Amino acid sequence: MKKDRYIIKGRIWISSKDGNFLGAGRIELLKKIEECGSITEAAKRMKMSYRQAWKLISSMNRQSSQPLVSSETGGHGGGGTKLTETGRKMIESYEKLQENFEKFLISQSEIIDFHSDR
Amino acid sequence: MKKDRYIIKGRIWISSKDGNFLGAGRIELLKKIEECGSITEAAKRMKMSYRQAWKLISSMNRQSSQPLVSSETGGHGGGGTKLTETGRKMIESYEKLQENFEKFLISQSEIIDFHSDR
Repeated sequence: MKKDRYIIKGRIWISSKDGNFLGAGRIELLKKIEECGSITEAAKRMKMSYRQAWKLISSMNRQSSQPLVSSETGGHGGGGTKLTETGRKMIESYEKLQENFEKFLISQSEIIDFHSDR
Repeated sequence: MKKDRYIIKGRIWISSKDGNFLGAGRIELLKKIEECGSITEAAKRMKMSYRQAWKLISSMNRQSSQPLVSSETGGHGGGGTKLTETGRKMIESYEKLQENFEKFLISQSEIIDFHSDR
């Protein structure tokens, strides 16, 4: 029973001409913002600085024709922050992509089974 | 014409219970060994130390029931080194996997087209 000896692993992300747009870390940040309604709190849960979180959000907003995150009154610590409709759809698309990717990885295991089977 | 605004990128590798088994870097090393018939020369072309190259080879050999690389007389600088039949088949499998992965990435672009199309 050596069938499962090798596992295909991987990761995917979405890029634009300006660099990375969306990957696992950015999606996690978006989801935490949706959960907390606050960049400060989301950053804390991600163990990153507010500055770093804001840099990521700003990078995403800049690369999209519609912003993914909007602050109601804006500013560090003040007002509420939430995902836009675009932000929520981006998460949905990314998760669909990730789901298909996991299926793909499983479907490919026969390619390496030949070797792990001896 | 914003159709190509986003691109899905990614990378894949093969793991065993002992950690990473084969990824893009290790495949490149195997191919250079095949090309040069020498670990020393392959390492040089990869801009890595002999020690580092040997560590990678040893890790691959250890995780496979058959070695991927064999040295005819062995030793640093002495004798010839070549890929085994298993080593060559691993490269073939990895390249097939990579080819399928590239097709997968392209096939998934419709998922993000919705967003890039506005």
